[in-house]
Amino acid sequence: MQPALIAVDWGTTALRGALLAADGTLLASHAAPRGLLSVAPGGWAAAFDAEFGAWRAAHPQLPCLLAGMVGSRQGWAEAPYCACPAGLADVAQRLHWVQPGQVAIVPGLSTLADGVPDVLRGEETQVFGALQALGADAAGDLSIVLPGTHSKWVQVRAGRITGFATHMTGECYALLRQQSILARMLPADDGELDGAAFDAGVARAFGAGGLLHHLFSVRTLALFDQAGGPALASRLSGLLIGEELRAQALAPGAAVVVLGSAALALRYQRALALRGHAVQVLSADTGWLGLLAIAGAAGLLSAKGQAGAAPAGTLSA
Amino acid sequence: MQPALIAVDWGTTALRGALLAADGTLLASHAAPRGLLSVAPGGWAAAFDAEFGAWRAAHPQLPCLLAGMVGSRQGWAEAPYCACPAGLADVAQRLHWVQPGQVAIVPGLSTLADGVPDVLRGEETQVFGALQALGADAAGDLSIVLPGTHSKWVQVRAGRITGFATHMTGECYALLRQQSILARMLPADDGELDGAAFDAGVARAFGAGGLLHHLFSVRTLALFDQAGGPALASRLSGLLIGEELRAQALAPGAAVVVLGSAALALRYQRALALRGHAVQVLSADTGWLGLLAIAGAAGLLSAKGQAGAAPAGTLSA
Repeated sequence: MQPALIAVDWGTTALRGALLAADGTLLASHAAPRGLLSVAPGGWAAAFDAEFGAWRAAHPQLPCLLAGMVGSRQGWAEAPYCACPAGLADVAQRLHWVQPGQVAIVPGLSTLADGVPDVLRGEETQVFGALQALGADAAGDLSIVLPGTHSKWVQVRAGRITGFATHMTGECYALLRQQSILARMLPADDGELDGAAFDAGVARAFGAGGLLHHLFSVRTLALFDQAGGPALASRLSGLLIGEELRAQALAPGAAVVVLGSAALALRYQRALALRGHAVQVLSADTGWLGLLAIAGAAGLLSAKGQAGAAPAGTLSA
Repeated sequence: MQPALIAVDWGTTALRGALLAADGTLLASHAAPRGLLSVAPGGWAAAFDAEFGAWRAAHPQLPCLLAGMVGSRQGWAEAPYCACPAGLADVAQRLHWVQPGQVAIVPGLSTLADGVPDVLRGEETQVFGALQALGADAAGDLSIVLPGTHSKWVQVRAGRITGFATHMTGECYALLRQQSILARMLPADDGELDGAAFDAGVARAFGAGGLLHHLFSVRTLALFDQAGGPALASRLSGLLIGEELRAQALAPGAAVVVLGSAALALRYQRALALRGHAVQVLSADTGWLGLLAIAGAAGLLSAKGQAGAAPAGTLSA
């Protein structure tokens, strides 16, 4: 099968690349712990060639699309944010070419709420990929959450991203888990989720008191021997994810798509189900489909005369 | 003037002691960086003598009252919590004697809200001291906040502590300030408070979105060059103190007593005033008055036949 795109997700600590056919078939993949932080200023073109030179030599006409923090101020080049609402066409029009005609960076998105900006980079590509995977199911309004260090809640209407909100949930969990006074109460590793303790944390987050207060319950329950370390780690996770859900103020019963890695996605699924929401979980690996769809919208697949290039709407998951 | 009490505030990282006359006059004071963490198990009596042996030798009949984390499981001896509601008499009845008739630890307080315990140690003494300082003004209902690493909101009715709530505000500020992704946006030192940025943080905390989301605005405002480092540190402080206030759900216009060190108390005063609350700020140094009042309620002042021992209710500030 003929390759149509070199797709790269280049983040803060690692990169992943895929050699894709126009129908989404993964022909080859590559990963390296060579993130933003390990590339010296001015060393981006060389780093890219070191990682993907073999594919480029074998397929010299192939376009390369890069998504993620590679487009930030500390990356290869700053790709200015694309303002919401933004669909495939908007993002495709604003590709930031670092090697004209050959290598482009997908812009992240910006939005404004009450005069305060919010941003994302890389998640836009995963969301567009999820919309491809969902097909006709994505025609209406969608709430998509991408859990992580900085969770993103993305609103989609008719295929366009209308807005989003970032929550520093994963980062706060790690800080509290490892560096706060609560760390003394917790085992070194999370171990398996204690479902009841997690659920209690989620429920507590919706009660009166506020996050800064509820966090202290991890300590007091230990002081009174009402819970052990593994249960307390699960409770802490539930308190934080619960607070994120509370703050999102979802409509009762609203459906939510969770886009993420298995373990974390399951926690969000559990918390959302507990609150009465219908949940659909998709793998975070929809990013390749997203990059392919953006390439299609930018005319990069047909322009290169790739045999079998499919319209973006018909890519298979 | 005749000394009536050796009063000690023995915390996690430091201790402070006072030689007090029965009317509250401070006859001598002593401080050392010898907190809970620096005393070896079994070494408490020796550490106490090393710090206060001279006073004890000079006044061998003087009772010694210790407050703070010295009464925790990791302290000299675990002084079981006194359950709320608790007044001077309740605490005085539950003194935990480590050297009978000579040295006693003031118990901390516990309370239950929605089945979840909360605790404090040391703040009960400061609150009782504040009630002494307030005199007749303390006859009714009072909301007292003691800002800090773990802020305490204490409810008082007719001189008794009816309940309280802990917020991990100061600890979360330090973690986010120094260890999170936000730290990169912030100067090494806080510097002077940027009032407008602090106020904006407080206001934002009361808006939709939730703390985990609002925190990220510290990053995005920097990304869009809408605020510099010192302003962002003030905003972060406002976001956290504002969230604490929001969670406390004070009645509109309710009066609040702030009991704390100058710089932090001023931030709480500012945030509370911004939200329309009447505020009275008292120095955190009311602790000595509190220990004296507890000693009085326990009969330790008159029992020793101290000349001029005053009833607890008439101590001067």
